[in-house]
Amino acid sequence: MANDPDDRGAKQTKILLEESEMPTRWYNIVPDLPAPPPPPLHPGTHEPVGPEDLAPLFPMALIMQEVSTDSYIDIPEEVLDVYRLWRPSPLYRAHRLEAALGTPARIYYKYEGVSPAGSHKPNTAVPQAFYNAQEGIKRLTTETGAGQWGTALAFACALFDLECEVWQVRSSYDQKPYRKAMIETFGATIHASPSVLTEAGRKALANDPETPGSLGIAISEAVEVAAQDPEGRYALGSVLNHVLMHQTIIGEEAMAQLAKVDDTPDVIVGCTGGGSNFAGLTFPFLREKLAGRISPTIRAVEPAACPSLTKGTYAYDFGDTAGLTPLMKMHTLGHDFIPDPIHAGGLRYHGMSPLLSHIYELGLIEAESIHQTECFEAGVQFARTEGIVPAPEPTHALAATVREALKAKESGSETVILTALCGHGLLDMAAYDRYLAGDMVDDDYPEERVRDALTRLPQDLG
Amino acid sequence: MANDPDDRGAKQTKILLEESEMPTRWYNIVPDLPAPPPPPLHPGTHEPVGPEDLAPLFPMALIMQEVSTDSYIDIPEEVLDVYRLWRPSPLYRAHRLEAALGTPARIYYKYEGVSPAGSHKPNTAVPQAFYNAQEGIKRLTTETGAGQWGTALAFACALFDLECEVWQVRSSYDQKPYRKAMIETFGATIHASPSVLTEAGRKALANDPETPGSLGIAISEAVEVAAQDPEGRYALGSVLNHVLMHQTIIGEEAMAQLAKVDDTPDVIVGCTGGGSNFAGLTFPFLREKLAGRISPTIRAVEPAACPSLTKGTYAYDFGDTAGLTPLMKMHTLGHDFIPDPIHAGGLRYHGMSPLLSHIYELGLIEAESIHQTECFEAGVQFARTEGIVPAPEPTHALAATVREALKAKESGSETVILTALCGHGLLDMAAYDRYLAGDMVDDDYPEERVRDALTRLPQDLG
Repeated sequence: MANDPDDRGAKQTKILLEESEMPTRWYNIVPDLPAPPPPPLHPGTHEPVGPEDLAPLFPMALIMQEVSTDSYIDIPEEVLDVYRLWRPSPLYRAHRLEAALGTPARIYYKYEGVSPAGSHKPNTAVPQAFYNAQEGIKRLTTETGAGQWGTALAFACALFDLECEVWQVRSSYDQKPYRKAMIETFGATIHASPSVLTEAGRKALANDPETPGSLGIAISEAVEVAAQDPEGRYALGSVLNHVLMHQTIIGEEAMAQLAKVDDTPDVIVGCTGGGSNFAGLTFPFLREKLAGRISPTIRAVEPAACPSLTKGTYAYDFGDTAGLTPLMKMHTLGHDFIPDPIHAGGLRYHGMSPLLSHIYELGLIEAESIHQTECFEAGVQFARTEGIVPAPEPTHALAATVREALKAKESGSETVILTALCGHGLLDMAAYDRYLAGDMVDDDYPEERVRDALTRLPQDLG
Repeated sequence: MANDPDDRGAKQTKILLEESEMPTRWYNIVPDLPAPPPPPLHPGTHEPVGPEDLAPLFPMALIMQEVSTDSYIDIPEEVLDVYRLWRPSPLYRAHRLEAALGTPARIYYKYEGVSPAGSHKPNTAVPQAFYNAQEGIKRLTTETGAGQWGTALAFACALFDLECEVWQVRSSYDQKPYRKAMIETFGATIHASPSVLTEAGRKALANDPETPGSLGIAISEAVEVAAQDPEGRYALGSVLNHVLMHQTIIGEEAMAQLAKVDDTPDVIVGCTGGGSNFAGLTFPFLREKLAGRISPTIRAVEPAACPSLTKGTYAYDFGDTAGLTPLMKMHTLGHDFIPDPIHAGGLRYHGMSPLLSHIYELGLIEAESIHQTECFEAGVQFARTEGIVPAPEPTHALAATVREALKAKESGSETVILTALCGHGLLDMAAYDRYLAGDMVDDDYPEERVRDALTRLPQDLG
């Protein structure tokens, strides 16, 4: 019978949760780790920073989350209200991609592109805007690479009546003109970075008037402006503990969704720039792994042009290029390293989240790097089978997924693969245009430039 | 208690259906109407067209649906499988828009932007591709305005291994470059229309080398190519009975979703170009209204620059500019009328679906037209409250929704308003850019040009 519900159930594509099943707490992995992460240091004194050092940049509620040792933090009702505009997000079973690859693997992807900004970024933009508004802050500054984060913060600020000013890395600003329009539609203002509006920007332009910019420079600009404004604060879209924690709602939902179809992941892969999407998906599963309840392989995937985890040094370094932020122990390619202008602008960050770096050092996760043409090949195959055009960033996760699925095909294993499709690529179509025209190149790993940048790391900090 | 489930339930934002609750039949309104719609006529003989007349353009399965008098047609299992990539689509309660307007009205919007193409168009693109593939067809041609339909057909063809060739109206082709990349990402080819590839295109260019193009011209080009290709057929994204019928899954789902929250619409508004989105949302509710079970006001909203229902003539006319299609009795501005290049490219069609026109003549629905700046104003307000950036087309429905909500505020009525947000505007950001820059103008209704175009209607056909 064509419309037998059981037939239809057998091909279930989306695993959904009701709004009433949405997690109401964020998960903080820190207390569950076998060793605590090294503290951030004050750039002047080289002493661990205290909450008061961070107060010019962040509201106290977020500073307390940054250093919290609680395992769970309740999500405020006002934030849940906004989350319900798109959350819980769907978990998909990639039936058509599996068929195209001829793999016995079962592929699941958690799709965060359903958010208003088109990525996972609103998961943290919304609480950041909320806590700032609650403490009487009037405006936020931030950086953005591909534009996903800037869009998310502009959206969140619109909902909580905050002004928002965004510095977008020049190479992405030029590649993705629709981002500007979208950020402005949400009511924010946007500048290409480096800009002439800040000391950090002017310095970068003096060094190289043709610079494509970097997330490091854009952070310097946004931090510089926020630090001088008593009613303004800065918001960061990745890297920090509280940002990663806000994203854990992704993994908590995915776990509840997999339980509904009675499946457990063997391999979890996610793309990493600053690390928030990857951490958001994997930390809840890592909690279960640390408790001995599951044993998946967990792997970060980064671009070959910016491989902080796989080729960076684990050392104290600045989060920004101008050296305005605290020193953080992390995998870094050097705070003034400028990655090639690959299309995955959101992954063009010289460092890796200190918390993820620590977890990598503890041997709890793996990492690999992939060139962008292999990633776009996977992205196009995904679009033509699953329908969704992925953002350039998660094509890295998809390329790794395809590798795993083909490995499973070779060995005949029914490997369960879980990945995060952290955003759609509808505002990145110029990159697809280039790929389809055969104009996309894979730059080699810039070994010499990284070696040079690493000579300027702060010294003797362990 | 902050996280009391009852509190959360009180603010339910999305009303979802499980995949198992997805409708498995399309609804055909024709047998439920008090009078049958006038038949299409052969352009040469002026006799009613038979199935064989349409066979060079459409597969027999769709021709039989076009003339069906069955009330319901089963959706093939292969089509349901694809629908599950995004269906059932969510019905939203617009809490934040309501609050911003200060209205006691309850506003619901059915959101079709969750589809891979970003609009309601895949609801018909997928079955059209399926039936063509099933009958051994190798390639499809089509026109597209804003690009939503061309994207949808490219996506559907990728899934059923069909080649796809798209003529996009020049004004939209130039305004929306990302559409080309997206259509190509799905594996299709795309041309600006008028093109030099067809007789119809060359003729239009000879008439006016600077023409912005029109859906009528683009249809002529696609039909001309399909008619000459024994293994090729043509696919239309709106206007025809079978297309409207495929879209009724929108209204059927919306009705089931409203029932879950025990609400009934007082007013239903939707934007109309060819009519498929509007019909898809409203026909199931019109069925209930005809049966005396509910009594909503049902209203079509069209652009002031192309007001076929409110200012057109009800007469037999061609569906395309070159006069290649059957003659259809419909509200028309004249088959060679070229609408101003407004940003809602999907609404720039000289005619209205014959079935909807008939229903309008029967007095079963109302219509109004709205200028594009009022529409974009509503679109920006919607983005800043609900988060979703709407496509230019459904901003017409949103502007009408805002009017209704403010009327309810004035009268203090808890009016229940239902509308269709038929697509997102992420590939239309250049239009928002223009609106925010204050460069968008409202062209007046081009009365004289319409009067001129109407002098060339086929004569004496009733």
